[in-house]
Amino acid sequence: MKGKFYGIGVGPGDPELLTLKAVRVLSNIDVLAVPESKREAGSVAHDIARPYLKAGVEVLTLTFPMIRDAEAKAKIRRDNALRIIEKIDAGQNVAFLTLGDPMLYSTYIYLLDNMKDRGIDIVSIPGIYSFSAISNLLNEPLVKGDESMAIISEFNPETWEKLQSVHTIVCMKVSAYGKQLFDALQTRSDRKMVMVTNAGKETQTVSYNAEDLKGDIPYFTTVIVSKTE
Amino acid sequence: MKGKFYGIGVGPGDPELLTLKAVRVLSNIDVLAVPESKREAGSVAHDIARPYLKAGVEVLTLTFPMIRDAEAKAKIRRDNALRIIEKIDAGQNVAFLTLGDPMLYSTYIYLLDNMKDRGIDIVSIPGIYSFSAISNLLNEPLVKGDESMAIISEFNPETWEKLQSVHTIVCMKVSAYGKQLFDALQTRSDRKMVMVTNAGKETQTVSYNAEDLKGDIPYFTTVIVSKTE
Repeated sequence: MKGKFYGIGVGPGDPELLTLKAVRVLSNIDVLAVPESKREAGSVAHDIARPYLKAGVEVLTLTFPMIRDAEAKAKIRRDNALRIIEKIDAGQNVAFLTLGDPMLYSTYIYLLDNMKDRGIDIVSIPGIYSFSAISNLLNEPLVKGDESMAIISEFNPETWEKLQSVHTIVCMKVSAYGKQLFDALQTRSDRKMVMVTNAGKETQTVSYNAEDLKGDIPYFTTVIVSKTE
Repeated sequence: MKGKFYGIGVGPGDPELLTLKAVRVLSNIDVLAVPESKREAGSVAHDIARPYLKAGVEVLTLTFPMIRDAEAKAKIRRDNALRIIEKIDAGQNVAFLTLGDPMLYSTYIYLLDNMKDRGIDIVSIPGIYSFSAISNLLNEPLVKGDESMAIISEFNPETWEKLQSVHTIVCMKVSAYGKQLFDALQTRSDRKMVMVTNAGKETQTVSYNAEDLKGDIPYFTTVIVSKTE
């Protein structure tokens, strides 16, 4: 009998923010597929999951190098999917970990594309997003009533202008566009921001000073921009 | 010594989607504050949390009637906050439950406004959003790469037009504006939708047929609109 494939969201960093379902599945899988890249998101996810894994679980390290060539990238994703499928065909249950949630800006999404339509039982388990953890940590609501919000992962000036109609803009992967975001905020007196790095971990930092957007921003940073009331 | 105040996100319905932190806190509180309204969201949240509560926990029912008068509404929120504060002053730990997450379109947000700046220790615990559960259930990513997304809770034609620059639009509280959303989707051939009611529960229904937006839509329904690729 074939094994199952699980995509597990482990949340933003605090091991207590895993769901009961994630913990149950982690304790039952045979193979843990850990993505490895320059950003080390995979090893951070592995560290969060570690306390819940059964002893002797096999670790399958998958490398996702940061390259620009689309064809080479697609090949790497396909090869990684094939390595997982081999285990599943051999009857093993395999889990792939995602920081945050599997369905929002994750490497898992590209694996999925290569695993669908192959008769594999795929179970994705949601995780807490960084911005959800941050808003709760700070007791600062994201949206209420008829307000709307947006989530971006890059800075596009045209999109940014259009999004000014929403109350809250969550800026993910902001380390790549801090300076652009700073400049954009300078032109708007009706917006305030909070920047949080390593949310919920001992190394957490919180800044309400937009100037900090101009400095070196660590990778695990999220900025929440909202309207001043 | 004063008690603490906890806002707990219980997720969209599946009791396995609570976080470990939510479960730990639920098993330790003295008083459970349950919001009660016409929509019965409070009693649904109570049902999800029930297996994790300690025996003999005191249930404090708070009524939030659906009224339009802003002043009367503010008074009700204030009175409810005072009933919680009374318990906290008496040294009891009180938890307020929220379906989904405490910081996204919740009644908890209005309670918070009345409890801040009173020297009360407030701990908010994130929960899985309905749209996060839905995207994982369906194995359908929300956003990847440089895509952006938006979340709305009412239909405003002007905002809707501006949001067409984003890849995914999550429509919450859609039971109030299904027909308007249907009409808007008729004008766009580059958009598809999925509508999910009671995500993750036995009574779950999933529809990819926009026509269903014109019928009676149950309260616990979320629509995800995305670009056709």
